[in-house]
Parts: sequence; C-alpha cells; structure tokens
Amino acid sequence: MRHHDLVVIGAGSGNAVVDDSCADLDVAIVEERWFGGTCLNAGCIPSKMLAYTAHVARTVREAGAYDVDAELRAVRWRGVRDRIFARLDAERDEGRTDREQQDSVTVYEGRARFTGPRTLRIDGVDGAFDVSAGQIVVAAGGRPVVPGPVAEAGLPYETSDTVMRIDAPPRRLVVLGGGYIAAELADVFAETGSSVTIVEKEEQLLGPQDETVRERFTELVRSRYDLRLGREVTAVGGRPGALRLTLDDGSTVEADVLLVAVGRVPNSDGLDLEAAGIATHDDGRVIVDRHQRTTAEGVFALGDICSPVPLKHVANREAEVVAHNLRHPDDLIAADHELVPAAVFTRPQIASVGATEQDCRDRGLDYLVGMASYGDCAYGWAMEDTAGFCKVLADPGTGRLLGAHLMGPEAPTLIQPLVLAAILGIDALTLAKSPYWIHPALTEVVENALLDLGL
Amino acid sequence: MRHHDLVVIGAGSGNAVVDDSCADLDVAIVEERWFGGTCLNAGCIPSKMLAYTAHVARTVREAGAYDVDAELRAVRWRGVRDRIFARLDAERDEGRTDREQQDSVTVYEGRARFTGPRTLRIDGVDGAFDVSAGQIVVAAGGRPVVPGPVAEAGLPYETSDTVMRIDAPPRRLVVLGGGYIAAELADVFAETGSSVTIVEKEEQLLGPQDETVRERFTELVRSRYDLRLGREVTAVGGRPGALRLTLDDGSTVEADVLLVAVGRVPNSDGLDLEAAGIATHDDGRVIVDRHQRTTAEGVFALGDICSPVPLKHVANREAEVVAHNLRHPDDLIAADHELVPAAVFTRPQIASVGATEQDCRDRGLDYLVGMASYGDCAYGWAMEDTAGFCKVLADPGTGRLLGAHLMGPEAPTLIQPLVLAAILGIDALTLAKSPYWIHPALTEVVENALLDLGL
Repeated sequence: MRHHDLVVIGAGSGNAVVDDSCADLDVAIVEERWFGGTCLNAGCIPSKMLAYTAHVARTVREAGAYDVDAELRAVRWRGVRDRIFARLDAERDEGRTDREQQDSVTVYEGRARFTGPRTLRIDGVDGAFDVSAGQIVVAAGGRPVVPGPVAEAGLPYETSDTVMRIDAPPRRLVVLGGGYIAAELADVFAETGSSVTIVEKEEQLLGPQDETVRERFTELVRSRYDLRLGREVTAVGGRPGALRLTLDDGSTVEADVLLVAVGRVPNSDGLDLEAAGIATHDDGRVIVDRHQRTTAEGVFALGDICSPVPLKHVANREAEVVAHNLRHPDDLIAADHELVPAAVFTRPQIASVGATEQDCRDRGLDYLVGMASYGDCAYGWAMEDTAGFCKVLADPGTGRLLGAHLMGPEAPTLIQPLVLAAILGIDALTLAKSPYWIHPALTEVVENALLDLGL
Repeated sequence: MRHHDLVVIGAGSGNAVVDDSCADLDVAIVEERWFGGTCLNAGCIPSKMLAYTAHVARTVREAGAYDVDAELRAVRWRGVRDRIFARLDAERDEGRTDREQQDSVTVYEGRARFTGPRTLRIDGVDGAFDVSAGQIVVAAGGRPVVPGPVAEAGLPYETSDTVMRIDAPPRRLVVLGGGYIAAELADVFAETGSSVTIVEKEEQLLGPQDETVRERFTELVRSRYDLRLGREVTAVGGRPGALRLTLDDGSTVEADVLLVAVGRVPNSDGLDLEAAGIATHDDGRVIVDRHQRTTAEGVFALGDICSPVPLKHVANREAEVVAHNLRHPDDLIAADHELVPAAVFTRPQIASVGATEQDCRDRGLDYLVGMASYGDCAYGWAMEDTAGFCKVLADPGTGRLLGAHLMGPEAPTLIQPLVLAAILGIDALTLAKSPYWIHPALTEVVENALLDLGL
C-alpha cells in the first residue's frame, strides 16, 4: 500500500490546500470528476458567465427605455456555451496538468472510500488500489438533490451539473425549486429563449433571503415566469422531450426539459466515512471543529461537504485554515462563518449579509430598519431603475449593523462596505458620515439607507 | 432696504443650507439662473444620465462579444435629451416652487452683488434693489473657462452648460480639453453618433489622475478619437457649423460644433466681493477657514466658489457644515477635504481616492503598489473584460492605504470600501482579510489588489 504524507479528496477547493508549503511533502490528490470542482465547472463561474450574457441580451431588448433603438436578433446559445466552457474546460485541464507535472504531487483519477483510519481505497480507471496517509483532507463537495418522483420516473432531467452545457435552450423549461440556483438559471434560460415555469414548495422564491427581498423579487418575476408556488411535484410522466409533471394540487405542467434545483447535499455518503471514524451531522455534513478537524485524528474537511455555509468564498477561507493547520498542529487557526455575504446574480441582482428582518424578529431583537430606493438617487435616475432598494438593519442602542440586503444593479458590489462595517463593528452612522460617498454614484443608495435608520 | 436674517446667494448646494432649523428665520435665496445649480442642470446628473444611455448603446453595439446578435439602429438623441431634461427641469422647477411657497423664504431671481458688509444689490427682472442681511452664504458656484482664442473669434461654441441640450449630436465634434468633463462628454457624443477630436495641452488625458490610469485610458481611447495631444488652439475661424481650429503646431481641425471643456473658474468675479471685505485666492476662490467662514464677519461660503475640491459630494458636506455653523457660533464644526473620492463616468469608468503614485513619489514616500486586473477574477471573465484594473498604494510600515485607483466597470461603486478603509485607518491587510469578499463578484478585483501589496 502506497503511503502519502497528505491525501486530498476532491480537487475543487481542496486543491488550494496544496500550496508552496507542501513542496517537501508526498501529496496525493484524488479527483473523481473534474479539477476545479463545482465552482469552476458547474457552479458560480459558468452561471455568472451565463448571467452576464443574459444581462447583455436583456439590455438590448430593453434599450428602448433609454431611447436607444435596438433589435435583439438572437442569442447564439451554442456560441455562448462554447465560449464559456472552452475557457473553463481549459482552466480545468490546466489545473490538472499543473498538478500532474509537480514531482511532489500524485493525481489519482477515481473515487476514494475510507477503509480504515487514514487508509483509502481508490476506484481508478485501471482498477482499485489502496493508499494510506499521514493526513487526509476531505473536500469531496456536494451534489444536487433529486426528489423521489423525479428519480423514480426514469425520465431525463437536468441539474446545475448538466443544464449549462445543453445544446439549446428548451422551448419550455420547468424549474423545480425556487432558491438561488433555480432563480439564476431560470433567468438565464428566460433571457435566451425559454418559456419558464417555476415549481416551488414555498409561497415565495429565494427561501433564506430577507422577507422584503423575497416578496419584491417574487412579485417582479411573476410576469416573467409561470410561477407554481406552494406546490410540489408528485409525478413525472410523458416521454423524453415532452414531459408532464403532476403537482400536488392535481394540476399539470408540460416541459421539454426539466431542471431540478431544489437544493444540494454533501457527498459524504459515498466515502465510507464510518470506516475511518468520521462522524456526520444528520444532514450529511461532516462534523468539523472550528479548526476544520473531523472526529478522526489527522483528518480535516472543508467546503460543501462540511460547511454550514456552502459558498465558494467560505470554502476558500476554510482551505486557507486547513492549509495552515495541517502544518501547524500547535498553532491552529479557526474559520469564521459569521457575517458571510452572499449574492444572487439574477435580474435584479441580490446581495445580503447578516441577519434578515425575520431573523431579528424571531430572535426578539430590538432593531431599526433603514430603507432607500435606487430610484431616489441620481444614478438610479440614470438607470431608470424603479425596483432596486437597499435595506439595512441596525441595533438602536449601538448603531451596529445587524444585516443588510440589496436588490438591484451592482448589488454584489454595493454590499462590500456594509460587510466591512459589520465585521469590524463600525456603527451605521460612522459608516454613513465618515467617508465621502461619490455623487452621483450608485453607492448613494447605501448612504441613504444608512441615514434612513435615523440614528 | 429690506433686511433678512439670512441671504443665500446661489440655489445649487446653497439651497441645502436652508433646512428645517431655519423655519424661524427670515431667509432670502438669490438665484440668477437655475435652481439646483450646476449639478442638477448642467453637471453631474444630466451627464450621468447621458453616460448611462451611452453605455446602453455601447452594450448593444458590442453585444456580439457575448454571442448576442444585436443591431443598434439608432440613438434617438432628442428622445434621450427630452427624457433627461423633462425630469431634471421638473426637479428644478419643483425646487423653486417649494421655496416660493415657504412663508419664511423669499426667492429673488437675479444677480446679487455686494455693496458693503452684508448688503447686496440684486439686479432682478423688475430692476435693481438693495437688501441687507444678518448672515450671508455665498454659494454662487463656478462656470466653464473659455480660452482667449475661442472667446475672441466671435464664433459659436458650446460648454457643459449648453452642449447636453443641443438638438442633435454634431457630425464632427471637437472637444477642447482632456479632463473629466471633456472625457465624459466626448464619450457621450462618440456613442451617439459624433466623430470626436480631442485637443489637449498635455500629452495624456485625465490630468490629475494616477499615472497608470492616465496612460491606460489615453491608450484605450486612441482608436476611438482623433487625439491632438500636447496641442493648444491658437485661432478659431470658419463659420458657424463649419469651424476651423488652428493649433499651435500650425495644424488645423474642422468642427461642426466646438465644445470648450478646459476647466472651470469660481463665479467670484461678478460679486463685488471687495465691497464686503471678502478676500479671494489668486485662482479666484473665496478664502474660507475650516468652518467655511470668509474673511468678512457673518459671511460664509461653500461649493465651487470656494472649495479646494469642486465636487458635489464635497459641496453637500460643506453645506451641512455651514447650516450648522450659521446657528451654532459657539460650537463650530469643520469640513474635511481629505480623502475625497472622485469618479469619471467614461468607458471605462474610473474612480480614485487619496494619493496617486506620482504624488507618493513626489512626496518621497515609501510605498507599496498592489495591482489586480478585472480579467484575473471570475466576474471579469463573465464581462470579457481585458482593460480594467485596481491599483492600491499603501505604506509598507503600517499597511495603511495611501491611495486607490480603479479603471473598469463599476469602479465608482468598487472604490467605496477603499474609501472607508482609508478614512478610518483600516490597514490594507485587515481590509483584505477580515471581511469575506463574495465569489464571484467584481469586488474580488479589489481583494486581489490588496493581497498583491504583499503585506
């Protein structure tokens, strides 16, 4: 059995653990599917590249609102897809080649399973073999959940893993789910030619967002999509390319393509973790302490397989923590999961950090609400924006920010000063009054929301 | 002679001085031209509304880069202009009407000149009359400079005061000047149909910007405009609609319309300030102390007529200071002119705060440079951006930010966390590492530049 100093399972964020400080180690990276992980191959990056293309198409379509006479002749889907994935597949291949060319790194293509403490069986292309390791990092990520009625139907369906690479936008796309992945992909396909139906079990889209964001976003897209809210799918029938979904109220929806985007689960179930004494939460996430250590000696985990916040910027931070802790057992550092901002690249864009208003209420907090509309600041006039807003929540005693929520153009950029203030404890009035805010930049909507707190 | 408790000369930023706390005062506002001042009528706001429209037109024209097949049929200039100015003229009129309807406020339409300490002669529509005041606020703004050869030619020319309201983009527009106003308006007219020549006395555009911004911006627009750099105009000939400019190297340029945008001067020369004992700097700016007090008892000044930084967000801050100090002579507050960010809404957009690299060198400072390209972060991939960058300058000892400069999409929004960190003394490493930066948002270019400092 070959022994490595370090084995990393998963070449997504896990790959970042193997930095220059590992040059003196015998390292193995096991990857079952694709270097670069979900983010590069089927997640954040291609979806944003598609979202930006959709934004361009929409700008053309709506140019008349700015007295620009334009015609949208077509979105050349194959061109879009091939442009995006030619770039990303090259990145993926380069990432892999770089590792293969490193003397200190062995790349195993295949699936790893634990056979005991720090021992693994790898089902590779040329058969199975065993390895042992001084330390192991579990970074095997997650995958889309497929609901029973879809899995049992035996009919084709897409997930975020596959739908971005299809040959053409379907005429009728049905999206199961109403979270951020569903919302982003619905937006992309609606802009590139699909007629979109969303089936979501809750009454509003974008589940964990602030209630104002959920309400206004759901209202905004009501005219764009066929929304089937408060509904779940009970059966999938028909035939490939002409599916018929039955919902729990007996109604039906026709679909050329079905996109399943109801959530993701950690890939912990295929690793025989129990053989190594690695415990998991009920939801399947590997249990880690604040130093990213699992319950098994010498085994760390990071990213979607364990994180309470399955986002790439969190996985990156966890990878830094693991990279440090692997080499510094007597000087462990911790990952911080507080005040993690997140964005949804829909139309309009959405960004948030910290508590929602419903969180504040549920926790019985005293809080102030500051609201400002894009339409009340000069750059919002320039954009002819009528829907965008910034909402901030603050403690009335200390003025500290509890949460912030934006919906509108540039929201993922606009939120950053609020993230900074929240994490450093800069109170809302200092944030509003100490720095200048450029007039007339879009940042004025944040300034106005802060001033609206009335502190 | 009628006496007022307070007379404000200029209803631009000066108008903001008259807030609720003045309800018990007899206030007069004197305005010669337009309520809302330069910003609303001929400055920041209409130029940004035009710039955004130009951005939409450009997005249509360049949609092919995203595999979006689009045709730009026309930019309906009159529609653009009328959309913008219908809105802004209504704001202007509403601002005026609001004041006229206030019992405590008298609006004088006309030009005010000092006749002595706190006494004014107002040349109104129905003749001249005199008023005296307990306190006076001088907020008469500035105006475009017109170089001798242009003024002496007796031929028509436009300035930022007039050009945004013309009936059609000229076929051939010559812009005198290469600063931010020139650059923004050149961009607007180039996108809406004009062939643009820029005549600028320096060898690069955007004078006060960081050298990297100046160099890269000038290179970027070289293919777009006929750049006559290092040149000054010596004569203007021809006839209206067919002008011929002679430059100092003997070369000539033909223009249907000439736009003069070489700079602005304070409107201090028309106020007979010496009659009131109000002193000015050599450049014409009214001298004020840090409390915005002029050299004459009871007379304050604010905005472009006095400010070292003639930008609207600064004038707004000065107006707050004056509003307070008028009523609190024993508790004066000061205006801060340090670390004022500024933006240029060209293509690409530009934003800056603090020192430029040439400032750092000239002052003999020790400094580190951090650079990052939009093209090296995932959202830059989505935008297919190849030119954008973020440059940060920091003190190697303390890590404090000395300056920051961005060129690219969303630059005026991206700069805000850097402004906040600079003003609050948050060092660059804390700024980079304490908050999360959303992946893959455009903010990653700022994070990358900070990390590139190598602190």
